[in-house]
Amino acid sequence: MTTLRIAEIFGPTIQGEGALIGEPTLFVRAGGCDYRCVWCDSMHAVDSAYRHTWTAMKPEAVWAELRRLSGDRPVTVSLSGGNPAIQDFGPLIALGRAAGYRFACETQGSVARPWFSDLDTLVLSPKPPSSGERVDWGTFADCVEAGRGARSTVMKIVVFDGADYAWAKEAHARHPELPLYLQPGNPEVDPQTPVDSQALADRLGWLTETAMADRWFAPRILPQLHVLIWGNRRGV
Amino acid sequence: MTTLRIAEIFGPTIQGEGALIGEPTLFVRAGGCDYRCVWCDSMHAVDSAYRHTWTAMKPEAVWAELRRLSGDRPVTVSLSGGNPAIQDFGPLIALGRAAGYRFACETQGSVARPWFSDLDTLVLSPKPPSSGERVDWGTFADCVEAGRGARSTVMKIVVFDGADYAWAKEAHARHPELPLYLQPGNPEVDPQTPVDSQALADRLGWLTETAMADRWFAPRILPQLHVLIWGNRRGV
Repeated sequence: MTTLRIAEIFGPTIQGEGALIGEPTLFVRAGGCDYRCVWCDSMHAVDSAYRHTWTAMKPEAVWAELRRLSGDRPVTVSLSGGNPAIQDFGPLIALGRAAGYRFACETQGSVARPWFSDLDTLVLSPKPPSSGERVDWGTFADCVEAGRGARSTVMKIVVFDGADYAWAKEAHARHPELPLYLQPGNPEVDPQTPVDSQALADRLGWLTETAMADRWFAPRILPQLHVLIWGNRRGV
Repeated sequence: MTTLRIAEIFGPTIQGEGALIGEPTLFVRAGGCDYRCVWCDSMHAVDSAYRHTWTAMKPEAVWAELRRLSGDRPVTVSLSGGNPAIQDFGPLIALGRAAGYRFACETQGSVARPWFSDLDTLVLSPKPPSSGERVDWGTFADCVEAGRGARSTVMKIVVFDGADYAWAKEAHARHPELPLYLQPGNPEVDPQTPVDSQALADRLGWLTETAMADRWFAPRILPQLHVLIWGNRRGV
């Protein structure tokens, strides 16, 4: 059976962002990514220079750790990364769902997987111009299609500036069927640097005021709560 | 036709708390309340000493103001207070829904109204012991029943301390069918006092860690974003 490359497993804590904000969650962060966003806040799970810190685990071993962390009480599991879609999380999802756990997956939409249909929540987060990456919208549509069996599929876009904002409107026009979540970008990703709460609040205020002045009421606009509470520390 | 007592109408801005957190929203704050929570953050809409600041408006006048603020673009309208359930918001809801606007209402669950069934989201927020109020659970159940036609009904509980936390678990046990949202209490409600972001973050951290250590995964746990962004100012 498949072996997974895992950067970290932690929780339970609350989901800090997006559609499931505030939801008690266990996090499985997959190692490895097909993107290199310039502002990536999880480079330790992306850059293969860190691969010696990743653990090769069978799905059964990941599942045993999730059961231990949750005290065997069913809870939501978030698969993130890196890009979890470059690996096969189908067997882990099958193990967890059989015990009543719910699964969410956060991926950029660059690789479609059959197991997207077994998720409770598929979060597709196409990367805006400020990332330095480019979205292949054909593959993105394949991901939406692969997730048709999921309980819900949503789109989340990080917005750093006006160009990203304009791009988010175009992305929503391509997929108006997906509930949309906007999140102000966080340029401070160094775990050693204290977070500037006022700057975080100001960026959320800017994005909110931009959309409201524009009378664009389609997206929900949310910050990263975990950064507000715990700063850029890992494992929380 | 009915006349409404309105403390303030403002927006659009994002909903700062609860099930619709991040959602672009117009706020209609009703004047008058049947409760006097000791930590009330909206006393200007509760205490009748402020009633000279409330405006008597026909539903048509409220609706005209909502259209003006939203530039005639359909958006979510939140009815709050005070306790909006002591007044008749049915005619306003009918006007707005006919134009594609969505309605949410936030009420403690002390008065049941037929128009609860016309809402998109009914938020019932029973008040915990720290409020100094006592919940009549029979009337609360009447409110749940009155809201059966709403698209969703949820429960939101403010938690100031360990006694409130224990009470929230009991409240959830009474109504496990209602999705539950917990919100850390905010003891700093003076609009003139600058907000202590670290204290807000610490209270969210405390509530999160309490529930996680307890392996209580039922509630979503969310802060008041508007306090983080705008402090305790009114009209934002």
